[in-house]
Amino acid sequence: MSPTPPDAHFADRVRDNFARQSMMVTIGAHVVRVEPGEVEIHLPHGPHISQQHGFIHGGAIGMIADSACGYAALTLMKAGTDVVSSEYKINFLRPAVGQNFIATGRVQRAGKRVSVVSGEVHAVNDGKTTLIALILATMMNVEAES
Amino acid sequence: MSPTPPDAHFADRVRDNFARQSMMVTIGAHVVRVEPGEVEIHLPHGPHISQQHGFIHGGAIGMIADSACGYAALTLMKAGTDVVSSEYKINFLRPAVGQNFIATGRVQRAGKRVSVVSGEVHAVNDGKTTLIALILATMMNVEAES
Amino acid sequence: MSPTPPDAHFADRVRDNFARQSMMVTIGAHVVRVEPGEVEIHLPHGPHISQQHGFIHGGAIGMIADSACGYAALTLMKAGTDVVSSEYKINFLRPAVGQNFIATGRVQRAGKRVSVVSGEVHAVNDGKTTLIALILATMMNVEAES
Amino acid sequence: MSPTPPDAHFADRVRDNFARQSMMVTIGAHVVRVEPGEVEIHLPHGPHISQQHGFIHGGAIGMIADSACGYAALTLMKAGTDVVSSEYKINFLRPAVGQNFIATGRVQRAGKRVSVVSGEVHAVNDGKTTLIALILATMMNVEAES
Repeated sequence: MSPTPPDAHFADRVRDNFARQSMMVTIGAHVVRVEPGEVEIHLPHGPHISQQHGFIHGGAIGMIADSACGYAALTLMKAGTDVVSSEYKINFLRPAVGQNFIATGRVQRAGKRVSVVSGEVHAVNDGKTTLIALILATMMNVEAES
Repeated sequence: MSPTPPDAHFADRVRDNFARQSMMVTIGAHVVRVEPGEVEIHLPHGPHISQQHGFIHGGAIGMIADSACGYAALTLMKAGTDVVSSEYKINFLRPAVGQNFIATGRVQRAGKRVSVVSGEVHAVNDGKTTLIALILATMMNVEAES
Repeated sequence: MSPTPPDAHFADRVRDNFARQSMMVTIGAHVVRVEPGEVEIHLPHGPHISQQHGFIHGGAIGMIADSACGYAALTLMKAGTDVVSSEYKINFLRPAVGQNFIATGRVQRAGKRVSVVSGEVHAVNDGKTTLIALILATMMNVEAES
Repeated sequence: MSPTPPDAHFADRVRDNFARQSMMVTIGAHVVRVEPGEVEIHLPHGPHISQQHGFIHGGAIGMIADSACGYAALTLMKAGTDVVSSEYKINFLRPAVGQNFIATGRVQRAGKRVSVVSGEVHAVNDGKTTLIALILATMMNVEAES
């Protein structure tokens, strides 16, 4: 069932692209797993990304969920392409309480122009993992700028 | 047509709440306008919130759009309540190119438990303002923690 | 601000296309207004489209909201193209109580391949008009089949 | 993992409620499977629910997807409650070509007031089953009217 990426260097491409996103460095997110059609991003909690009660800001959760979906789409694109978010929708299921947050994106349909990707975010709190958000997104292929 | 906020100090409440969100400080966003049912947040571009081509990261756009909607909902809630995002959906219409980004949220229906809010983000590029994103969100009232 | 449709016969094209959708005939919807980038569809209430309490079914509201957005996109497409819904999101603000329901779709960005359209549905109940739903949609251009 | 419904008669309640929705009768949909937190609705293709090319109308797909999510939420509610759609988002992945369409809704979080439900629609075409749509929805509990 696992799709074959048209670019054998898909994992390097994702990691290189991610490393050049200073927004991801600023919040402290990192790519943990890159597979064909699936990407996992982790975000440890920190005081610089919190909201008024000290919990992680919902916006940071949306950011890594969107990112995981975008990079999942990128794994199945040919070399020389890049990905931009066309739209996404996210539902927050439970409070984002924990020390680490794991966003996973999974391609549901990889098109030549547009990919549909679903994903979720889990919170890891004192070793216990809880589903806290669900995302459904459309990613668009664009030509990569060098 | 402008609704009357049940809490006369709604603007102070929004600004106080916002100031305690270190995530907003980290990206450099600030609240510019607070009216009954409507809030405007500005985000100047900076290298710490960019993506791989140096443009502002889409995740930062999503973050201020969601925030503007949440605070718009908060303006119409009674004292002692707080707001959390239940869900939102955002469409990116055009590339986020510019020096400043303006997110506006407008309450479409203020309920006792749940508010529906719509909004948009404009980019200001060399003095020219362009619509770059549309958002449609549900905000949930919760009791404020002290 | 009103965009110029690339096909001068855009209104006829919308009405012809609509007339061939038997689903629209089945529920009793009709196109009332077709302008460049904007379309209005009406749906009178009837017992065949109701839910368990006799009110109009939410699914019928979603159907005309989606349709109004799709046809709004079609008005700005060149001759020989057709439109399909890529995705949409709808928020229901108030109960769908009334004798007539008016869905309006407005193009927010008309692209060569993809258009972003927003819209709303109003209920007309004993002469009083109330906003009951908001929609935000992506429409995709496809080549028309003859 | 399967949740225990607070109302032992949850399946009868879903089927009774569905039977009173004349909209569902009009399109020809029927409930096929009712389990705690999960409901499956089938819709055979017919000329009265088609679009301009004779395929099933996307609006009918949205309708059964939304319905499956709503009834999935209802299975986990206590007796004397009813469910209304607060919002949903649907992505159409592939053309809706087939003789039968199967919508499945699965509760992801059952709250006292609000449930988050995800679902999908499959087309069955000449015996082959294909995923054609994904939905992510919020359902609200309301007191049942007698």
